[in-house]
Amino acid sequence: MRVLGIDPGLTRCGVGVVDGAPGRPLSLVHVEVIRTPSDADYAHRLAAQADTIAEVIAAYAPDVVAVERVFSQHNVRTVMGTAQVAGLAMVAATRRGIPVALHTPSEVKAAVTGSGRAEKAQVGAMVTRLLKLDAMPKPADAADALALAICHVWRGTALSKIREAKIRTALARSGS
Amino acid sequence: MRVLGIDPGLTRCGVGVVDGAPGRPLSLVHVEVIRTPSDADYAHRLAAQADTIAEVIAAYAPDVVAVERVFSQHNVRTVMGTAQVAGLAMVAATRRGIPVALHTPSEVKAAVTGSGRAEKAQVGAMVTRLLKLDAMPKPADAADALALAICHVWRGTALSKIREAKIRTALARSGS
Repeated sequence: MRVLGIDPGLTRCGVGVVDGAPGRPLSLVHVEVIRTPSDADYAHRLAAQADTIAEVIAAYAPDVVAVERVFSQHNVRTVMGTAQVAGLAMVAATRRGIPVALHTPSEVKAAVTGSGRAEKAQVGAMVTRLLKLDAMPKPADAADALALAICHVWRGTALSKIREAKIRTALARSGS
Repeated sequence: MRVLGIDPGLTRCGVGVVDGAPGRPLSLVHVEVIRTPSDADYAHRLAAQADTIAEVIAAYAPDVVAVERVFSQHNVRTVMGTAQVAGLAMVAATRRGIPVALHTPSEVKAAVTGSGRAEKAQVGAMVTRLLKLDAMPKPADAADALALAICHVWRGTALSKIREAKIRTALARSGS
């Protein structure tokens, strides 16, 4: 399973592609941080992020695009741009017929470190270890995007299995 | 000048096209409310809004797309979808080379009613009068989108004139 994790942002948007399956080693396919200059026209910055995300999706053909779920209570000053880039990423994936999954920051932290309240550095350290990298991906947006992809490889698959099991049980009960 | 006003929303997105110029009568070109079912997949709802907005832009070829500026403190439960649809509208306009303008709800209310704290019904009544309509556009999202377009026809043009005047003054001073 190939997952593209997206840590949305208007100034810096982290994108990370990971191949893996639960219980199997993970491997890094691609990581980058897409930047737009803060003094550029707002709508053009959004369009530039959308275009680059669409290019990454086309280039790496992920099975799933995992996007960080944005909450309005976080960082009010930048949350609009973050939410908008998240929306553009979801639409870019949908236009290519690729399913979108949303994970909260605490789900991502819990998946890779065991604690939903882990510090950024701990997330970066675990991403480095899990992907067997020589150095921690920088800036933090790059590591966060990879953590999101890893979270989905593990959690998304686990959730799918739970759903499949429930559907099988329901079908068995209904006698079909 | 033709302005497309967009009152963004995931469940209901108002779009209204108005022709006009300051000191000249305004005319209604088009108004509709784009809806997506609240039980549909989130990313598909965003994509549906983006597609329909792009179709409206292509069909009516506005000179400017005016979008309501979204604030995070309003209605936390729905603000993410609203912000995301606003972002998609900005990108749709930018992709066609059409400039985007943002106006706050109070700027819009002040433009059409004279008060930045006017009630929805007052905005609807003024839109009906200014566009010489037989009935108030409904739902409120339709009237709000038209109010936004009217606001831009008046305010946007006025702002452009102030900017042009400042540029002329600056050029005159610099001796060019």
